[in-house]
Amino acid sequence: MRELKQERAVRTRAIILKAAAEVFDELGFSGANIREITQRAGITQGAMYFHFGSKEELARAVMKAQPMTVLPHLATRGLQRLIDLTFVWAHRLREDVILRAGVRLTGEQNSFGMHDPTPYQDWAAVMSECLREARAAGELSDNVDIEVLADFVVSACTGMQMYSQISCERADLMDRVVAMWQHLLPALRAPGDVSPLDGSALRAAEVLREIAPQRLGAGQETRTAP
Amino acid sequence: MRELKQERAVRTRAIILKAAAEVFDELGFSGANIREITQRAGITQGAMYFHFGSKEELARAVMKAQPMTVLPHLATRGLQRLIDLTFVWAHRLREDVILRAGVRLTGEQNSFGMHDPTPYQDWAAVMSECLREARAAGELSDNVDIEVLADFVVSACTGMQMYSQISCERADLMDRVVAMWQHLLPALRAPGDVSPLDGSALRAAEVLREIAPQRLGAGQETRTAP
Repeated sequence: MRELKQERAVRTRAIILKAAAEVFDELGFSGANIREITQRAGITQGAMYFHFGSKEELARAVMKAQPMTVLPHLATRGLQRLIDLTFVWAHRLREDVILRAGVRLTGEQNSFGMHDPTPYQDWAAVMSECLREARAAGELSDNVDIEVLADFVVSACTGMQMYSQISCERADLMDRVVAMWQHLLPALRAPGDVSPLDGSALRAAEVLREIAPQRLGAGQETRTAP
Repeated sequence: MRELKQERAVRTRAIILKAAAEVFDELGFSGANIREITQRAGITQGAMYFHFGSKEELARAVMKAQPMTVLPHLATRGLQRLIDLTFVWAHRLREDVILRAGVRLTGEQNSFGMHDPTPYQDWAAVMSECLREARAAGELSDNVDIEVLADFVVSACTGMQMYSQISCERADLMDRVVAMWQHLLPALRAPGDVSPLDGSALRAAEVLREIAPQRLGAGQETRTAP
C-alpha cells in the first residue's frame, strides 16, 4: 500500500515536471504561473504544493533534470562517451521539452534573480566522469586538467546552443558540435593513443540512429540505461 | 556651424548610449524604461527620441556597440590578435558597462521577444578578420575553416562568461579564456609555424598592462586606435 502511494507520488511529480517544463519553455520564468502548470498537469493546487513549494522550486527541479534527459541514451565509455553525450544533447534539445526548458531557465535565471551555478556544475560533473574514464583508459593527454576541460565543454555547449537558437532555432546545432570536436580533439588525445575515437558528423548520425527506436516509442519515462 | 551641430549630436548619442547601458546592465531589458535613461543622461525625452525611436532601438544600439569597446585596445595581428581580443574582452566585461549591458541584452533578448543574431555575427566577423590575417601569414592550419572557427570562439566566449558570471561574477573568466586557448591552439596552428603565439596567463597579464594607462585615463571616448 505504502509502495503504491510512493509510485503514484513519483508519477505525479513527473507529470508536474513535464507540465512545468512546457510552460517554462513557452513563456520563460516570468511568464509562467503555477495555475497554468497545475491545469496542464491536471492536478489540484494542493497536489502541486505537496510536491513543489513555489515556482522557483519548480524551475530548480526542471534545471536539475537536464542530465537525465540525455544520460540514459549513452552506451559508450570515456572520451567517446563525452562526445556522444554532446551529440545526444544537441539532438534532445530539439525534442525534449524538459531539457529545452532547463536550458532556457539556466540561461535566463539571472534576469529573474536566481543565481544557481549547479545546472552548469551538474553537467560538468557528468563530463568529468567521462574524462576520468578516458584518463584511466589512457585516452587523455597528460596536459588536460579534467575539471577545467569539463567546464570548457559545458561553456562551449551553452554558447553554441544560444548562438544557434537565435540564428536558426538550433537547426545547425549538431554541425556546431561536430566542429567543436574537430577543434578540441587534437589537444585532448594522448600521444600514441589508437582508440577509434570519432567526433564526426557520421558518428553523430550513428548515435542518433541508435536512440531512434526509443525516441519513437513510449517516451523517456520507460527508458532504462543500456 | 553644421559640423558643430554634428559633433554635439555624436556626443549626445554617446551619452544616451552610456546611460542606457547602465540601466540595461542593472535592470535588464524589461526592467529598464526610457524615462530613467533620459534622466540619467540629463536630456529631454525629445532629444532621446531624436536619436533613438524606442527602447528596442536603444537595446540594439547597445548590443551593436560591443566590439568598439574592445577593438581600440588591440595592437597585434593575426592569430595573436584573436587571442588578445578575447583577453581584452574578458577584462573589459568587468570594467565597461556598454560591453556588459550588450552581453546581457544579447543573451536575454529571447526572453523579451527579440531574435537578433547580429551581435554574435558582428563578433564572428571581427574574429574572422583576424583569422584571415593569420591564414595570409601562414599561421593557420589548412584544416581550419575560418568562419566555423570564428563562430565557435564566439560561442565558447558566450558560454564562458555566463557560467563564470553565475559562479563568481566573472572573477575567473580570464582563467577560463586562457584554458580555451590551451585547448584550441593545437588544432589551429599550421604545422611548422614558428611565430611566437602566446595564449597564456602571462600574455593575458601583458595585454592588460598595455591597456592599463588608458583605462586609468580619460575613458574610452578619447581612445584612438594604436
